[in-house]
Amino acid sequence: MSSLRIEANQQAFRRLTEADPVLVDVQRAGDVLPGMTASTVLTAGAPLPWDRYIAAQRKAILFGAIHEGLAATVEEADDKIRAGEIRIGSTHDHGCVGPHTGIYTASMPVFVVEDRKTGARGHCNLFEGDGSPRRLSLGFYDEQIAAQLRFMENVVAPILGEAVRRRGGLALTPIIREALLCGDDGHVRTTAGTMLFTRALLSALLDLDRRADVRRTLDFLEKATYTFLRPWLAADKALIEGLSGLERSSLVTVMSLNCRELAIQVSGLGHEWFRGPHPRFQGTIEGTWFDGSGRTPVPEGWGWFGADSLLAECLGFGGFAGAAAFALQSYYLPGSTQDIVARNLAMYDITVGEHPVYRIPFFDHRGLPTGIDLFRVLETGTMPAINGSIAKMDGTGFTGGVVWPPIECFEAAAAAYRARYGE
Amino acid sequence: MSSLRIEANQQAFRRLTEADPVLVDVQRAGDVLPGMTASTVLTAGAPLPWDRYIAAQRKAILFGAIHEGLAATVEEADDKIRAGEIRIGSTHDHGCVGPHTGIYTASMPVFVVEDRKTGARGHCNLFEGDGSPRRLSLGFYDEQIAAQLRFMENVVAPILGEAVRRRGGLALTPIIREALLCGDDGHVRTTAGTMLFTRALLSALLDLDRRADVRRTLDFLEKATYTFLRPWLAADKALIEGLSGLERSSLVTVMSLNCRELAIQVSGLGHEWFRGPHPRFQGTIEGTWFDGSGRTPVPEGWGWFGADSLLAECLGFGGFAGAAAFALQSYYLPGSTQDIVARNLAMYDITVGEHPVYRIPFFDHRGLPTGIDLFRVLETGTMPAINGSIAKMDGTGFTGGVVWPPIECFEAAAAAYRARYGE
Repeated sequence: MSSLRIEANQQAFRRLTEADPVLVDVQRAGDVLPGMTASTVLTAGAPLPWDRYIAAQRKAILFGAIHEGLAATVEEADDKIRAGEIRIGSTHDHGCVGPHTGIYTASMPVFVVEDRKTGARGHCNLFEGDGSPRRLSLGFYDEQIAAQLRFMENVVAPILGEAVRRRGGLALTPIIREALLCGDDGHVRTTAGTMLFTRALLSALLDLDRRADVRRTLDFLEKATYTFLRPWLAADKALIEGLSGLERSSLVTVMSLNCRELAIQVSGLGHEWFRGPHPRFQGTIEGTWFDGSGRTPVPEGWGWFGADSLLAECLGFGGFAGAAAFALQSYYLPGSTQDIVARNLAMYDITVGEHPVYRIPFFDHRGLPTGIDLFRVLETGTMPAINGSIAKMDGTGFTGGVVWPPIECFEAAAAAYRARYGE
Repeated sequence: MSSLRIEANQQAFRRLTEADPVLVDVQRAGDVLPGMTASTVLTAGAPLPWDRYIAAQRKAILFGAIHEGLAATVEEADDKIRAGEIRIGSTHDHGCVGPHTGIYTASMPVFVVEDRKTGARGHCNLFEGDGSPRRLSLGFYDEQIAAQLRFMENVVAPILGEAVRRRGGLALTPIIREALLCGDDGHVRTTAGTMLFTRALLSALLDLDRRADVRRTLDFLEKATYTFLRPWLAADKALIEGLSGLERSSLVTVMSLNCRELAIQVSGLGHEWFRGPHPRFQGTIEGTWFDGSGRTPVPEGWGWFGADSLLAECLGFGGFAGAAAFALQSYYLPGSTQDIVARNLAMYDITVGEHPVYRIPFFDHRGLPTGIDLFRVLETGTMPAINGSIAKMDGTGFTGGVVWPPIECFEAAAAAYRARYGE
């Protein structure tokens, strides 16, 4: 019955909005991710057979194996994957969120966020440093990239982890709330959040003995303005973990890209993936990349490389908070400010509630539109507006824009929902 | 001729927008303010005869004299002021800007900002610490307030000064530009600016030997979110100093309140004050405080206490950048977001240009309306919208709102302009 669905969605909404996500640690992926092993490489998006991974995402997986010391060359890594000696896994199946290609190997550090209300945990790796597209997460690897990853593993992560533990954890809700007042959307802009995060940890950082490493960590945080996206996404994951398998709830709990498709999960349908083709894309630099069919004719040389970060939109951030982040107009998001406003306002039509703590100043402090209802998407025809990006495969370009997921995912999920619950 | 006026105003606009304000030091007022002496107390607004200072502003002057050791009691301070042993001066005559009552004595620390283009300097004292209305600058004084002022003099200022000097100065334009993208208006919200300022100084701060004092300074900066207002205002003052006495320019270079009146200065008319009654006030907490006459019937117990910080609006900040700071809606600024937008847009009607570097994201990154033209104010009847505040005299309340200056100042200035330039 529809009233049972509404009730389930309201329950889901309450769980989301009453959560208390706390950053509790920074640890090695191999030590904290459920089901992670020394020979596993995780990557973003719904899982694919190995042969279907292409381009940047395939390269990133192979380079990840090399970085972890599981293989010496891409050929060897490829052989070992085929032989089952190296296992490829999907981030979302291992309690974590992988922005871009979303590579995790055992020794890579992750932010650990716990929802103090439920005990559920979410994890996310660290942003690689600066705005350069030459990063492992975009399918590149060389000595400089390797050195930066080692620096993060050996300096940044241990320092941040110790500061967080000394502080007894860092409550994220006040930082997220304030970041939204300072122009962050929680997906493609976290400039303010990273400053607030640094400020909150500063006192603990200055208590540490390794002064030179503290300095290098603070220098890293100054440049890596996307750093706070990662605990933010880990919080999103911790919250959404508490919603999976909530009987009859039609909330969209996950949206994610791999190099082939966009796929979603729905609360009442557990961890089943509902897959569709690539999203449509409206970019700032290259214009609008889609045709009437919903397919994206990506221009030559550009490609989709994955992205678990679309999870942000399931929690009311990103395109659902675009009007909190007008600074993104023109340099990241297409169209005028009024277009950003219109896209954001439309999200109230497909969500189950307005967040009581996270607010959009421009909407007279109205709460974020939170909790995408699968059926409202289909009834209204309004698709979630995702603040995202697409990259040039040769590493020379990267452009921001709006990602519109394909309706096929939602149709497939609705069919499964009806089959299960008889609505 | 009007074309000469337009040309002069364009020249003034270029000087404002091509300036390069750099924070060069933090020093004792007595060592750096022009004309400052050991027995001088400066206060905000156009100067008044001693007997006309009332309420919070009078109390703050007397307490300032005590704090400096010029008198032991308010009675003694009063006697010495009458005897000419303690001199009362106006901040704007001494190269500085005094928010609220704007008290400066010789040993108080000031930010020193130099426009590298012209060499002109501006100064501003430090914010007293947290949001409590019990501050010297609002007319209060007790042991706790005195201790806080001493802490700023002996710890915060020397530490910040040393960090700034080690760094070889701190260019303010990039920080101001970014702060506007992060929701600051540059008058009543500087939360982001203070974080950016802290981040920019952090490396130099961590090089200092006095680690405990550095820690206390960083703790101070975390709480005192208005800290960056002060170098920002010092930059405003440095820039506006370069405009005073610019032949035929009708730009409003200063707006300022004392406890009795609002007064303005105009570029082509030098340092002459044009005085009017109190402004009208639209508050968030107590509603709209004005009648048709332009007088403000301030409710019992509330009062005007001065404010040089209205200078911000002369440079395109505050109410001229309200649409950069929607977070101020409801808790600080009255009306809806649309009211903030409308007030901000109207400022383009009374200014001579749009700032090429400082931009408002919501207006599709349009430049700030910069440089108030006295004659456009009179021709359009649109008064400058100032983001300001008013306080309860017993220290129990403080409310933000919009301050509308009285037209009398502008009429008096226009008459003087015509008398001088024959237009």
